Amino acid sequence: MTQASICTIGDEILIGQIIDTNSSHIAASLEEIGVRVTRMLSFSDEHGEITRNLLRELGQNDIVITTGGLGPTKDDITKAALAEISGSKAYVESAEQLAIVRSILHCRGLDLLDINRAQALVPDTCEVIPNRKGTAPIMVFRFPEERFGHSATLYSLPGVPYEALAALPEILADIQARHALTDIFHKSIMCFGMAESALSKRIEDWEDSLPEDIYLAYLPNPLTGVRLRLSIYGGVKEEEEKRIDAEFERLKPLLGTMIYSLEDDTLENAIGSLLRGTGKTVSAAESCTGGEIAHLLTSVPGSSEYFLGSVTSYAIPVKEKVLGVPGEIINTHGVVSAEVAAAMAEGVKNLTGSTYSVATTGLAGPSGDGDNPVGTVWIGVSGPHGTETVRKRYNDDRKRNIERFSAAALDTLRQYVLKDLINCK
Amino acid sequence: MTQASICTIGDEILIGQIIDTNSSHIAASLEEIGVRVTRMLSFSDEHGEITRNLLRELGQNDIVITTGGLGPTKDDITKAALAEISGSKAYVESAEQLAIVRSILHCRGLDLLDINRAQALVPDTCEVIPNRKGTAPIMVFRFPEERFGHSATLYSLPGVPYEALAALPEILADIQARHALTDIFHKSIMCFGMAESALSKRIEDWEDSLPEDIYLAYLPNPLTGVRLRLSIYGGVKEEEEKRIDAEFERLKPLLGTMIYSLEDDTLENAIGSLLRGTGKTVSAAESCTGGEIAHLLTSVPGSSEYFLGSVTSYAIPVKEKVLGVPGEIINTHGVVSAEVAAAMAEGVKNLTGSTYSVATTGLAGPSGDGDNPVGTVWIGVSGPHGTETVRKRYNDDRKRNIERFSAAALDTLRQYVLKDLINCK
Repeated sequence: MTQASICTIGDEILIGQIIDTNSSHIAASLEEIGVRVTRMLSFSDEHGEITRNLLRELGQNDIVITTGGLGPTKDDITKAALAEISGSKAYVESAEQLAIVRSILHCRGLDLLDINRAQALVPDTCEVIPNRKGTAPIMVFRFPEERFGHSATLYSLPGVPYEALAALPEILADIQARHALTDIFHKSIMCFGMAESALSKRIEDWEDSLPEDIYLAYLPNPLTGVRLRLSIYGGVKEEEEKRIDAEFERLKPLLGTMIYSLEDDTLENAIGSLLRGTGKTVSAAESCTGGEIAHLLTSVPGSSEYFLGSVTSYAIPVKEKVLGVPGEIINTHGVVSAEVAAAMAEGVKNLTGSTYSVATTGLAGPSGDGDNPVGTVWIGVSGPHGTETVRKRYNDDRKRNIERFSAAALDTLRQYVLKDLINCK
Repeated sequence: MTQASICTIGDEILIGQIIDTNSSHIAASLEEIGVRVTRMLSFSDEHGEITRNLLRELGQNDIVITTGGLGPTKDDITKAALAEISGSKAYVESAEQLAIVRSILHCRGLDLLDINRAQALVPDTCEVIPNRKGTAPIMVFRFPEERFGHSATLYSLPGVPYEALAALPEILADIQARHALTDIFHKSIMCFGMAESALSKRIEDWEDSLPEDIYLAYLPNPLTGVRLRLSIYGGVKEEEEKRIDAEFERLKPLLGTMIYSLEDDTLENAIGSLLRGTGKTVSAAESCTGGEIAHLLTSVPGSSEYFLGSVTSYAIPVKEKVLGVPGEIINTHGVVSAEVAAAMAEGVKNLTGSTYSVATTGLAGPSGDGDNPVGTVWIGVSGPHGTETVRKRYNDDRKRNIERFSAAALDTLRQYVLKDLINCK
């Protein structure tokens, strides 16, 4: 299988000043064309560091893609290292890149300085792919089999994400033209409502019965639940996808409505998919989640079709006055109670005129209220077939609890809407 | 200088499914205590890959920090690799971690399964730092000088960012206790309201006049503005901090009320600091920000002292009915207008009885409304000295716009409250 390493060059990443997003985008693109990324690596822009790390990666991979280290000030270091690795004795000017540099400077009303002209110089051992979005050319170094025991190619891309990503299609086409690539087939199922460990117990027999060439991965996330991904390396796309689908068909009865999507997805998107085109609408009343449920629902493009609005009723008078929760219910049952969650859900549904509504009242932290420990939430959902409430209990981290409460509320809403829409049919 | 390597283990990163944010946070923390990060590395969770890469990193660094590969399910095999590297022949149960696992499961109403119990098992060659936020223990392996030619320590952290970051202070304290680190003194100023390039132009003369041993870093973030950090390597804490303070004193007049904190901070915290103890309160009315402002304000522990509540009025009838925005104003000026922003701010202030309020109406994307391009927001703030509005314009990315709109709204609110509290005195 064709193997690749992705290297980022530069101190900004090593001191934690910027997060490397290039590598992830490049990796996802390589994976789609069937190149296996064996390693990602960030190192400093010092000559020795660059040559040492690149030689090792070239020795162990068919493809090495680097980003960074090509700005006008650091140019000499990375280029000199690449010249040394490739045995170049002279630099040549790329006429095509020089024309781009000239035109970029012209647009900004600047003269061509020596430092700019130098950017179009490349070691005479490389091929140039013009960088149309910036001044530094993309360099391709091809090493014959004698050098590392296998033929190897190094692609040097700029570090600016917008320039690196713009160059990617040409790099991918070059790789596909020169390698007999194995395809990789992935499919995912999203489920919510069970911890990873309990889930793995539930589907243990299914997992053990998977064919040896089908790989399972658990990808948990507090906001979206657990993604179960099956992968097959090699084969024919249609057949392998059919085989994965067949395994997922066997899985579905084990998880039921915990499954909310058959692709990489979020709960708020799943709710959008259920509601879009039905004419039905939703609203939210939030206490402890403080706006996060509304934020998640409205993060979906086009959510204004079904999301009417929400009330964050942090203070008790807002619960009473805006949502119409009777003070008596709060006094009798406490503000963190099934009764208040239900009254909030009904209140916001009446206020906005929505079909469905969801409400939360709980204690995200840092402290509990005497009756309820920190991490407790009551969720209420309301709609055409009445109002339901459920209690959940998590830990003591405020930020995390707000996330978990919100995700649990969205899932409770999703299950209610799902049941209701099925009943309607 | 003490050198460290940061390794992330797991295929999710190599196939570009998730972006590694742990490494950047860990690197920034190491840098602050004077440890030099030489390399960041991501590799697959295969036994041979893990041992091969970790042995090389241990051979070249004093400290290796790993994240990931410690989940309860079958795709995680890091522990076996660590056992092999450290020459462990047996696993032992960490009573402390087992108690935490039990309590986490108990909170969530789950039984202790064998698979959970196994998480508390660790190679007998490691020390355990309990992971209070999750089930997988943090393992510390100390290798004597004979092994790699220098003494080396490996810290194995969970991959879940929230658990990894929670464990970081203990790891850093352990490193500081065992290494003679060069002291680094940092101080930061947070400012909001100017892009990095314009800011650097504004403070150019000040920056050029800094003593040679004082280093300036710009750390921009869409939600919190730009952090300006000054650093001195080596010296005596009190003296160096005084020198940095003196430089910041010279900076303050250049930035005025754009500065919102003299330490690493957020806008919502700064608002909390202004309001706490004053008896004054705040509320929000959100359209395009969809709950994010309320979410940010309530992410501050103790925010219930001053945050009363908010209304997300996504649909026009909710603006009219709940917030009392006159339909006439919407018809005359359009929903994205200064007049509607002002009416929303006044509406939610009246509804909740708060001292101050903030409102947003705009177009986060994906499309504009004919009159206003995507990326336009009107912000309204209201309080004892009247209502003010301001228009901002950003780009076309929905998610990013919701963040930028919310941050701009919080800063507009902060400036208003600041002015008002000064007037009160």
